[in-house]
Amino acid sequence: MNRQDLISLIRRKKSFLCIGLDTDISKIPVHLKDLEDPIFEFNKAIIDATIDLAAAYKPNFAFYECYGIKGWQSLTKTITYINNTYPAQVFTIADAKRGDIGNTSQQYARAMFDKASSGLEFDAVTVAPYMGEDSVKPFLSYPEKWIIVLALTSNKGAEDFQFLTSQDTRLFEQVLIRSQKWGSSENMMYVVGATKAEMLADIREIVPDHFLLVPGVGAQGGSLQEVAKHGLTKDCGLLVNSSRNIIYASNGADFAEKAREEAGKMQKEMSELLIRHQTSDI
Amino acid sequence: MNRQDLISLIRRKKSFLCIGLDTDISKIPVHLKDLEDPIFEFNKAIIDATIDLAAAYKPNFAFYECYGIKGWQSLTKTITYINNTYPAQVFTIADAKRGDIGNTSQQYARAMFDKASSGLEFDAVTVAPYMGEDSVKPFLSYPEKWIIVLALTSNKGAEDFQFLTSQDTRLFEQVLIRSQKWGSSENMMYVVGATKAEMLADIREIVPDHFLLVPGVGAQGGSLQEVAKHGLTKDCGLLVNSSRNIIYASNGADFAEKAREEAGKMQKEMSELLIRHQTSDI
Repeated sequence: MNRQDLISLIRRKKSFLCIGLDTDISKIPVHLKDLEDPIFEFNKAIIDATIDLAAAYKPNFAFYECYGIKGWQSLTKTITYINNTYPAQVFTIADAKRGDIGNTSQQYARAMFDKASSGLEFDAVTVAPYMGEDSVKPFLSYPEKWIIVLALTSNKGAEDFQFLTSQDTRLFEQVLIRSQKWGSSENMMYVVGATKAEMLADIREIVPDHFLLVPGVGAQGGSLQEVAKHGLTKDCGLLVNSSRNIIYASNGADFAEKAREEAGKMQKEMSELLIRHQTSDI
Repeated sequence: MNRQDLISLIRRKKSFLCIGLDTDISKIPVHLKDLEDPIFEFNKAIIDATIDLAAAYKPNFAFYECYGIKGWQSLTKTITYINNTYPAQVFTIADAKRGDIGNTSQQYARAMFDKASSGLEFDAVTVAPYMGEDSVKPFLSYPEKWIIVLALTSNKGAEDFQFLTSQDTRLFEQVLIRSQKWGSSENMMYVVGATKAEMLADIREIVPDHFLLVPGVGAQGGSLQEVAKHGLTKDCGLLVNSSRNIIYASNGADFAEKAREEAGKMQKEMSELLIRHQTSDI
């Protein structure tokens, strides 16, 4: 999906909500557990209930890999279901935080983007920047595919290294600055945690146009209002992730309905924020 | 596997060779390609041919994930084969370079270490440090399991961030220093690329006792002699990885035999280095 298509679907849905499909079998409704693939069935119901409200879906790979082959089957079925049932209607993010030496990252890129090889085809993959340019470049050789580079994460450990200052520039800022040479705002986004929303103003000075993927709103304590205030651009420029607050809104038979309610609350708030903050016709 | 067991097997085999099982189907012998699982059959033959020469095996996950579910099947069969056929005879490393917020890394830890959940059980996993302490700590809650933290990598992109200097300390040194609080030399190692072998002396000042996993010898240009000179400790303290030079020594019917020959050359050189450099009775 290219940038214009992404902006168009955000305009159409009046939403920049990304729903994190971090599906934990211990938290899903009991009545699903007897089915052959409870995780896929849960995801399918969440997707069907929220497709008109969500700009993006983001399965975190850890929640699938912990079940090994079976988990990869659930993951494959989930992305295949989205691509077949709702083609070009939603942006899809492989939250895998990959990164390795060049010829190895090339294999990871096939895993995320090349359906003929891996059975998976996402629009974007999250990548870790520690190993530098050649560790992320192979992902950018796929047209209309994106990398989402970890810049400032939402967890406590972000303080261990991301704020280290070299020549008056913090490491997460170095990542933002140097990575500008790797790609453009047409194929590169950044992860910026909502728990550090006050940093968004500084970040927007370095990357005024790039989309930012913002985790940490809700369960992790970040505020959507704060994120929008500092992060929205004329093209929206944000994908705000919520996972637990939406997908586990109920663990009864009404889980999909309740997930839709929670997603709807966020979409409504986002719709108002887009009108309030935007200068373009979103 | 605990540290003493690892040191014992290095002593017994007179080898600190780690063989990277980065199995690329386009490079394996033609006669294997008609088998049901060519990647597993290739790995099995390499393992059987080198088990007495190798201290460790290290499949890089990218080379399996690029085939999706089928790749995870090959990976699962490979680690299961090692664990069942050669129990406690070799150290196993999941080269996955994972790392995410705490509750997510917990799921990755299950993927790598909890056979009942994922079907996989490795001795160690490589982790990326960018997200800090809480992103790697969950891996350390498994007794006798290890993390191998990326410190100084062997690729060109290592220069993008790993050498940034904050208060006279380079980022890779900050990683070595701060991570000392996360674990100990009993459950934590570091990745240090052989292409930067001259840095090993500096690194040994910060981590005198920790094992170092050293990629980049051979195909990437690093020298085993240089690595040993600066990196060996009285407990060996090194696992030196070689992948392409060994596993693709031949692409004919004699591939396993030729792999054994190449592994044997390295083991012989290592055996001599251990005698020359060591003060203990290795």
